[in-house]
Amino acid sequence: MVNLNFGEIILWEMMGTAMLTLLGVGVVANVVLKKTLGNNGGWLLINIGWGFAVFVGASIAAPAGAHLNPAVTLGVALADADAKMGGWGNFPAYLIGQIVGAFLGAVLAWAAYKLQFDTHDEPRNTRGIFCTGPTVPNYLWNTVTEVIGTFVLVAWILLSPGAKVGAGSIEFGNSALGYAAVAFVVIGIGSSLGGPTGYAINPVRDLGPRIAYAVLPIKGKGSPEWNYSWVPIVGPLLGGLLAGLLYLIVT
Amino acid sequence: MVNLNFGEIILWEMMGTAMLTLLGVGVVANVVLKKTLGNNGGWLLINIGWGFAVFVGASIAAPAGAHLNPAVTLGVALADADAKMGGWGNFPAYLIGQIVGAFLGAVLAWAAYKLQFDTHDEPRNTRGIFCTGPTVPNYLWNTVTEVIGTFVLVAWILLSPGAKVGAGSIEFGNSALGYAAVAFVVIGIGSSLGGPTGYAINPVRDLGPRIAYAVLPIKGKGSPEWNYSWVPIVGPLLGGLLAGLLYLIVT
Amino acid sequence: MVNLNFGEIILWEMMGTAMLTLLGVGVVANVVLKKTLGNNGGWLLINIGWGFAVFVGASIAAPAGAHLNPAVTLGVALADADAKMGGWGNFPAYLIGQIVGAFLGAVLAWAAYKLQFDTHDEPRNTRGIFCTGPTVPNYLWNTVTEVIGTFVLVAWILLSPGAKVGAGSIEFGNSALGYAAVAFVVIGIGSSLGGPTGYAINPVRDLGPRIAYAVLPIKGKGSPEWNYSWVPIVGPLLGGLLAGLLYLIVT
Amino acid sequence: MVNLNFGEIILWEMMGTAMLTLLGVGVVANVVLKKTLGNNGGWLLINIGWGFAVFVGASIAAPAGAHLNPAVTLGVALADADAKMGGWGNFPAYLIGQIVGAFLGAVLAWAAYKLQFDTHDEPRNTRGIFCTGPTVPNYLWNTVTEVIGTFVLVAWILLSPGAKVGAGSIEFGNSALGYAAVAFVVIGIGSSLGGPTGYAINPVRDLGPRIAYAVLPIKGKGSPEWNYSWVPIVGPLLGGLLAGLLYLIVT
Repeated sequence: MVNLNFGEIILWEMMGTAMLTLLGVGVVANVVLKKTLGNNGGWLLINIGWGFAVFVGASIAAPAGAHLNPAVTLGVALADADAKMGGWGNFPAYLIGQIVGAFLGAVLAWAAYKLQFDTHDEPRNTRGIFCTGPTVPNYLWNTVTEVIGTFVLVAWILLSPGAKVGAGSIEFGNSALGYAAVAFVVIGIGSSLGGPTGYAINPVRDLGPRIAYAVLPIKGKGSPEWNYSWVPIVGPLLGGLLAGLLYLIVT
Repeated sequence: MVNLNFGEIILWEMMGTAMLTLLGVGVVANVVLKKTLGNNGGWLLINIGWGFAVFVGASIAAPAGAHLNPAVTLGVALADADAKMGGWGNFPAYLIGQIVGAFLGAVLAWAAYKLQFDTHDEPRNTRGIFCTGPTVPNYLWNTVTEVIGTFVLVAWILLSPGAKVGAGSIEFGNSALGYAAVAFVVIGIGSSLGGPTGYAINPVRDLGPRIAYAVLPIKGKGSPEWNYSWVPIVGPLLGGLLAGLLYLIVT
Repeated sequence: MVNLNFGEIILWEMMGTAMLTLLGVGVVANVVLKKTLGNNGGWLLINIGWGFAVFVGASIAAPAGAHLNPAVTLGVALADADAKMGGWGNFPAYLIGQIVGAFLGAVLAWAAYKLQFDTHDEPRNTRGIFCTGPTVPNYLWNTVTEVIGTFVLVAWILLSPGAKVGAGSIEFGNSALGYAAVAFVVIGIGSSLGGPTGYAINPVRDLGPRIAYAVLPIKGKGSPEWNYSWVPIVGPLLGGLLAGLLYLIVT
Repeated sequence: MVNLNFGEIILWEMMGTAMLTLLGVGVVANVVLKKTLGNNGGWLLINIGWGFAVFVGASIAAPAGAHLNPAVTLGVALADADAKMGGWGNFPAYLIGQIVGAFLGAVLAWAAYKLQFDTHDEPRNTRGIFCTGPTVPNYLWNTVTEVIGTFVLVAWILLSPGAKVGAGSIEFGNSALGYAAVAFVVIGIGSSLGGPTGYAINPVRDLGPRIAYAVLPIKGKGSPEWNYSWVPIVGPLLGGLLAGLLYLIVT
């Protein structure tokens, strides 16, 4: 049982999700922007950055169960909302903390790389630092990719023997790795299924930084591409839904 | 003891092996296909993708002992079939779940990368995304390589102090890493012994996706190269057999 | 409680911090110097080298709580100096051990790479092997980057459920990973926030090797750039301070 | 206490060290030889291959304490031979198992890559696959590098709180990582201190494969360079000696 009230859930999820997007947006900035030490560092570096971003964020959000992701919250709620997150009534608290945190983390990442944004030679091509986009645009199949990637994440979280999501639990993946196990899974999903769309697999991970990109005073910035923005929301929620249903069927 | 019936073993092995080939075929697609974010990402990225594919798949198949691999099932059966997998009578359940899952996972990986397959510039050279092949063809020595790689995997599983394969056990490699320990071993084998043949080290990991390649409507696809397909079946089974015999001799 | 006296804290922190900068300076030497096997090995290699440098150093400094970093000591002291490090009176012991160790480790790294320093083709550009510097110089924003990076490190250390810094504790990050969890966090921070300034996130990690660079007989060496040297001292201390204050507010 | 007799120590150390050099020599073959999937895979891939080679080998040699390395055996013996390895009388058993295993593993690695050796375009430059060599030859400073690298390894093993080398113990590095902790340390040492000499840090890891290179029928092979072969024996033994002495002084 999560023994936090509504406001405390917001606080811890907000702090954890801010860490997630601070480090996640940061690693893409490091690889994409020209005047950085990690410029052109490759896809594995990006995956490792995002993976350990999850580790840091989840450790900090542990008191609230460390969802950091509405798709996880949805899967957890379907699996057993009463036991795992104190009931569906806490759903809005998770969402609020996650979206606010995702926005704040992206702002911090921008501050850490402000000089590099100012000196970047292709300022219009910086949206990809903040939020995802497809290499081959196609709403249907881009959504399919996001559904599959998120399904793997949430199914793993729910089905790992010993998994006890919510309640600040750390028993994931049949091991004593704690949230490092989730980091490994995210590195795996990014390596394997991130190629077509940049693996949002989390609605707020995409939407929060996209809003930040829209409002921050980034010199010469391009479009936040709102027309695509629903895909990394709908796809991950569908993936979390399917994983929750699978859990109900097989357990 | 595995406390599952025949059908339940099929179910859990199928789900775990589907995760394995979904993520494993996925990472090769990400590196090989042109319009992906991981294009040309290198051998280490592929190894990490396959390694964490094992982590995800094994976590999910834990109730059945998380074999995911007929060579592992053979080694486990030789080591102590009654205690570790409920007797040789369950052997077909493991095989059925593994081959069906391996096929389904490859289909899902294709769906995740459908647009990238459609836009790839060398569609005939996509077989390597699904199944293995030698860099220098030679049936004898290619088989030797697969025997050695699989021997390392199965010997490690059986001989690690505390290893308790089957029965949903997670005690591998003298650590609390759970199935992440197996992921590390697979990353190691791929890095070290994957160079000549692409390290099937698992008959269904190769055969399931090869069948998928043969039947999926991949635009402009090449041959599934059935003439080589027996090597990644016979080699791994021989390696698992030798590891099982070593276990019987030294323990 | 740390059950060490003043001199023992100096000893263990010195040994641990020496390991940290030996391996940390070593990996940058390996990547930067021309006649090495790791030349041009990339940013991920550097991050992994520094991450496991923390693992080795922290394991060895465990009896003293494994701070290795005045910013960590400051955060720990703010969080609960009496319980976690035997009171503020031990603060100087940590500092002395850390700065002496950081210097000694850098000297050892130079010895390990002496032949490569002697044969390097750009001897004036070797300062970056020892200490950090900005890719875009700007005192304010460089400091901001160091504040943010260090804040993530110290906030994670203090807020991870189960974190028990000081007293030789090893319970970090809700896992049984011990100090490997800190290594993962450092790899994450380096990947994500190391791009603009090279992530000192530790005053002595920068100052100790900078002094070593100033005094060692490195053939043709350049300036130690003392004018920048206060940034990686002030930024990390501010970050540790903010993390300590956050801890006091939210717990 | 090791509860094995002389012959059993030989057996388990032999099997573990064979796994070590099979996977270690294998990863260098994968990176160096032309017709492999890992060709030109980089220094990080080599380090990860050697690191997980240690993980696999140590897991298998656990009943004997998993030394795999005379420098470790020397440090352990100095620290407390009676308690940790059943007395100095077992020293020769460790040595025999280690050198025989190191040779056998290299032979297996050659078999796995036989076709790639046969088709390599620079057959004279294959010694580096088997054993180490300096990038800048200088007996004194090459030895210094090996002393420092091995000192880090053995000091970490002996000083990690909770370290219980010998007796099949798995408590390393203040964590439940088991031998994966040693793998991380080896990846760190390789990344950081492997640049000048290729980090033997283990006399038999170098000597066993060097003998294999001398005797195997490798087409067009070059010299085993016996004149350098004493450095990776003397350096590591000195490093292990110094670490053992440090342990006696500080504990």
